[in-house]
Amino acid sequence: MRSQTTVKILGEFLGTAVLVATVVGSGIMGTTLSSDLGVALLINTISTVLALGVLIFLFLPISGAQFNPAVTMIMALRKDLSPQLASAYFFAQIFGGISGAALGNIMFGEAALQISQNARDSFGLLVGEVVATAGLIFIIVLTVMRGQAEKLSILVPAWIGAAYFFTSSTSFANPAVTIARMFTDSFSGISPSSVLPFVVAQLLGALVGWVIATYFITLNTQKETHNV
Amino acid sequence: MRSQTTVKILGEFLGTAVLVATVVGSGIMGTTLSSDLGVALLINTISTVLALGVLIFLFLPISGAQFNPAVTMIMALRKDLSPQLASAYFFAQIFGGISGAALGNIMFGEAALQISQNARDSFGLLVGEVVATAGLIFIIVLTVMRGQAEKLSILVPAWIGAAYFFTSSTSFANPAVTIARMFTDSFSGISPSSVLPFVVAQLLGALVGWVIATYFITLNTQKETHNV
Amino acid sequence: MRSQTTVKILGEFLGTAVLVATVVGSGIMGTTLSSDLGVALLINTISTVLALGVLIFLFLPISGAQFNPAVTMIMALRKDLSPQLASAYFFAQIFGGISGAALGNIMFGEAALQISQNARDSFGLLVGEVVATAGLIFIIVLTVMRGQAEKLSILVPAWIGAAYFFTSSTSFANPAVTIARMFTDSFSGISPSSVLPFVVAQLLGALVGWVIATYFITLNTQKETHNV
Amino acid sequence: MRSQTTVKILGEFLGTAVLVATVVGSGIMGTTLSSDLGVALLINTISTVLALGVLIFLFLPISGAQFNPAVTMIMALRKDLSPQLASAYFFAQIFGGISGAALGNIMFGEAALQISQNARDSFGLLVGEVVATAGLIFIIVLTVMRGQAEKLSILVPAWIGAAYFFTSSTSFANPAVTIARMFTDSFSGISPSSVLPFVVAQLLGALVGWVIATYFITLNTQKETHNV
Repeated sequence: MRSQTTVKILGEFLGTAVLVATVVGSGIMGTTLSSDLGVALLINTISTVLALGVLIFLFLPISGAQFNPAVTMIMALRKDLSPQLASAYFFAQIFGGISGAALGNIMFGEAALQISQNARDSFGLLVGEVVATAGLIFIIVLTVMRGQAEKLSILVPAWIGAAYFFTSSTSFANPAVTIARMFTDSFSGISPSSVLPFVVAQLLGALVGWVIATYFITLNTQKETHNV
Repeated sequence: MRSQTTVKILGEFLGTAVLVATVVGSGIMGTTLSSDLGVALLINTISTVLALGVLIFLFLPISGAQFNPAVTMIMALRKDLSPQLASAYFFAQIFGGISGAALGNIMFGEAALQISQNARDSFGLLVGEVVATAGLIFIIVLTVMRGQAEKLSILVPAWIGAAYFFTSSTSFANPAVTIARMFTDSFSGISPSSVLPFVVAQLLGALVGWVIATYFITLNTQKETHNV
Repeated sequence: MRSQTTVKILGEFLGTAVLVATVVGSGIMGTTLSSDLGVALLINTISTVLALGVLIFLFLPISGAQFNPAVTMIMALRKDLSPQLASAYFFAQIFGGISGAALGNIMFGEAALQISQNARDSFGLLVGEVVATAGLIFIIVLTVMRGQAEKLSILVPAWIGAAYFFTSSTSFANPAVTIARMFTDSFSGISPSSVLPFVVAQLLGALVGWVIATYFITLNTQKETHNV
Repeated sequence: MRSQTTVKILGEFLGTAVLVATVVGSGIMGTTLSSDLGVALLINTISTVLALGVLIFLFLPISGAQFNPAVTMIMALRKDLSPQLASAYFFAQIFGGISGAALGNIMFGEAALQISQNARDSFGLLVGEVVATAGLIFIIVLTVMRGQAEKLSILVPAWIGAAYFFTSSTSFANPAVTIARMFTDSFSGISPSSVLPFVVAQLLGALVGWVIATYFITLNTQKETHNV
């Protein structure tokens, strides 16, 4: 019984670590190889999309493949997860993320933990985080409520890939990943002073996405009932 | 009953808004990061393709995921949709599109509504719109008539992605999106004077695509009947 | 009866036309937008891969979605196709291809039919065509013999996308497309003097691919029989 | 009986040859067309991902589509493969890989076999190889133990594509491919002095990946038993 909880928590730790190593490592790769930031973002995004798809497919039956405190929060509010397990997931995701940032830095010969000087401060960026996280939660809640959770290994990476490019903030959409990205002074980093506003915007976006998904599911279910 | 109609219309509004926010936002992202317009178009296209796939998958059971007055027109002509609902869809798509353009602009710190100065005037561009829209309607009608509508979340983004690159106009293929893109003075914008010819070309292309799809379906059905 | 044959032939015509319009149009788009030929080839390849997947999915139940005289030749040798229909397919593919090249040129404001000055003459390029076409036929024959033809809308575009980049010739792998690409003096063009060697290499590659596929299928079938 | 073994071994030879020809050829294509190494790596990676997916799909029912001594080693340790067949696979993979490098060089008009001068020596690169290979084996073992081997034609290319970009070493993750890439003095080459450390890191990573996969599978199975 206890070992089951442990394996779930370790799943969240490992999955979030690999996810952040992907984001950080491919960001360094992109800016090392290219002087064109558009090319660097293509490399950063494609790498993240592919890794995220693999990770969700593999860890969905293990831990739920949340890797994201905003997702865990909504799942706990929906009673899909006990508050105790949710708390443990938060820690696993944050420490996994920081470990992944360190791994990304080390692979490229950098100091394991650094402090980013990449200020990301503007109203537009926060709107971007609200949009990116709202979309993420909308997708997850709608898909889970339809009983199609196995589609999340396609839908979530596709959304994150789109949002990397179309939101001004490149779609962090994840408080654990945001905290972890403080610890790399590279392309994907975020300075400590920008973290709290990002996290607040993400949690706000998560609530927005949950409300919208609930609206569409509820009415959609009525449709099926009424057979319009 | 009325709430069912409302949810469908809001589905078209929200889906078209996110689609246009993707097109506008990723266009600004691409030209902000890269001085190479080819790289910018790669970013613009990949973002649109991924978001479109997610949106069609999610909204297909809600509203039909049309997001496009040219599609709605053909569906209404095919009697898949009442003229009343089609009219409401037109408004939802156009206002959704404009809202999405505003969101895209705001995320990047721009004025919400601008007027594009991006003239898109040439015979070749109009041929491009006819081809892009004809292909889109051909795909949708053929696939729906074969009872494979669930494949549209792959086929439509794949076609739009191809047509972004191979049609000279980068495949607007959608009157609501065309109107909305007047309101951003950025990479993906279109000046007001170019809108009407684009929309006419799109509606013409829609009819062409419908006729060709009907031709192939009809004969294909005969084949199955005659078992040649 | 006659109308069934007509619809198949028109399917090959239309599919090959759109395929070549994609190749030619996206080649012009890439070189127009970017001065980096690598970026231009990315645009050219992604567009072709996506369009090819859509076209094969849609036309497979109509005409077999061959769009390629090398494929038709092997299918006729395998008796999957009568010599009469194969001959008609050759014409449809070649005239479809030329029509598609014209459409690509016209969309970009160029003269409909031009003569390419893009010499593609070297031993390495011909080796590239043998490899690309052998792989294409290997995939098609193996997949058809395994009764998985519906996978071709994924496998063929994936192979062509890979071969665009890893064969020196950018994988024409198709005599009709090769002939059609004489008629555009742009990125994807091929000068008339290079066409015959390319076609000979493609037909040679087709035979090589067929022999290898037959070898693996035959022994594979024995395995199932002997249950090793 | 013997012919079955022969076809399996030839399958490994041919698959590894095409895989390395893809890596080497697309590397030369990328650096020939673009002066931006990020664009070159995009071309290199996309080509490899697509070819790998096709090869795994086609050869899975023939030889198991391993193409990689690190995979074969783990499979032999798991008793999925006899030591005799594993030894034969090692030779087929290495000679296939070298043949593929030669083919890649020849297609681009280079000498068939060259010696790379591309030194890849740093601690970070070796960490990258451990991570890339551990992930690869983790994916394969977990997926095979879940009875979902047919998903490997998606999961393995997705992982390799991600790891091309996010590991500092661009994810060789394969001793046969590493040895083969000594023989091209181009973008994807590796100098002979760097090969042994890479191979050791890959074998270490393979063991790490196997251990982690076994941990997650075992506990996951308990979960199903205890029905928590």
